[in-house]
Amino acid sequence: MSESNENIYIYGRNTVQETLEKKADQVEKIFVRNSLRDDHISKILNTASQHRIPVSHVPGNKLYNLVGSVNDQGVVAMMSAVEYREFGEWIDTIDTDEYPAILLLDELEDPRNVGAIIRSAAAAGIAAVLVPKHRQAPISPTVFKTSAGAAAKIPIVRVGNLNQSIMKLKDDGFWIAGLAMDGEQTLWDLEVDRALAFIIGNEGSGIRQKTLEHCDLSFSIPMQNGVESLNASVSAALVCYEWNRKKV
Amino acid sequence: MSESNENIYIYGRNTVQETLEKKADQVEKIFVRNSLRDDHISKILNTASQHRIPVSHVPGNKLYNLVGSVNDQGVVAMMSAVEYREFGEWIDTIDTDEYPAILLLDELEDPRNVGAIIRSAAAAGIAAVLVPKHRQAPISPTVFKTSAGAAAKIPIVRVGNLNQSIMKLKDDGFWIAGLAMDGEQTLWDLEVDRALAFIIGNEGSGIRQKTLEHCDLSFSIPMQNGVESLNASVSAALVCYEWNRKKV
Repeated sequence: MSESNENIYIYGRNTVQETLEKKADQVEKIFVRNSLRDDHISKILNTASQHRIPVSHVPGNKLYNLVGSVNDQGVVAMMSAVEYREFGEWIDTIDTDEYPAILLLDELEDPRNVGAIIRSAAAAGIAAVLVPKHRQAPISPTVFKTSAGAAAKIPIVRVGNLNQSIMKLKDDGFWIAGLAMDGEQTLWDLEVDRALAFIIGNEGSGIRQKTLEHCDLSFSIPMQNGVESLNASVSAALVCYEWNRKKV
Repeated sequence: MSESNENIYIYGRNTVQETLEKKADQVEKIFVRNSLRDDHISKILNTASQHRIPVSHVPGNKLYNLVGSVNDQGVVAMMSAVEYREFGEWIDTIDTDEYPAILLLDELEDPRNVGAIIRSAAAAGIAAVLVPKHRQAPISPTVFKTSAGAAAKIPIVRVGNLNQSIMKLKDDGFWIAGLAMDGEQTLWDLEVDRALAFIIGNEGSGIRQKTLEHCDLSFSIPMQNGVESLNASVSAALVCYEWNRKKV
């Protein structure tokens, strides 16, 4: 195991293969040296694919940059900094009659935003933070650090497909709520007598249209002075604490 | 003029001297090559000192890193990315009978926090953001970018001595309010029928004791799950929007 560039890496064919078989949830990404093509590598790629873990084919010096001068055998895996919960297992533990609130992060890119959001969510008593497996900043040591350790104090739930998870949450009794510039209500009109799943959109583009169509409720945050949006971690904190203020 | 490392620099003895005389407010910091000692340099150092602008004595290669291969004559000045207002001039324009709210940043270190705070403040209708000249992240291009341009939409007021400025604000009718873990009230008890100056503490250490003693009001933000503090930009946003929610 090696720590470099703030992430945790493991390397070597057997180590990576075993980790993929036993702790796939904790693997963020696989790096394979460009030119490699043999049965062992194919097996690793297949196992990664089964678990929907992204694979990058990279030059040998990229691997060297990640783990240094070790016998990496052409394969490196980036590990997550927290213990993820799996969606299917987690949702069985949730009682929507208690009117919990959760956050769903929709492809956030900035690890520091993700960390700050997890910290606010834990502080405000949010029940869980759901993070997509793909196109989303992984829960790296930077995220963990920015969360001031809060990433260990609140369930972090990994979801494969955000829209499918939203449908499942609806089936379970969650109302899906999103922030949008043209939201139907202001955030101050939020009612907390129901289970709520708040979608937090990407820093630049906000909530994707397809995701927005699943929302049962949409809220805007009033803004003055021609400001058109807030920092993603700020929007998320305002949501978490508006819920907290009314709920507690 | 040169842009490097995200900051704006000017260089050369006459250019820096003239800028110090005419636009001292826009100069963040002076860098002087270590070994230099002559009348012209002394004059620059004196002018910088009059305006309380920090000076760093650095090796020649540090200057090279800032401005590249130019004839810097051993003197480089880092410029601010926004037009600051001066405290004395700004306070004369404020009518405390309209119950405005302002933020005072107390030695924040992270330019991204400062940018996000300015963005939230502008969006929430806060009247101004006061920033100390010393031991505080300057309003760099990073701050400007993180503010999403909001740094140009709200007065950014520079203050020499934070505690003296607080006394002057009190004389003018402002109530000084700070966030503290053991605050007398929760933030939700905030009343907005008065002019309010909110102190936003340093990311690590919070509001300094000496500054806290000036506070007329102290508020806590309720926190669960053993979380002990929030990101500085999150705390500031909750303050700005609690004020906004009640005021507007």
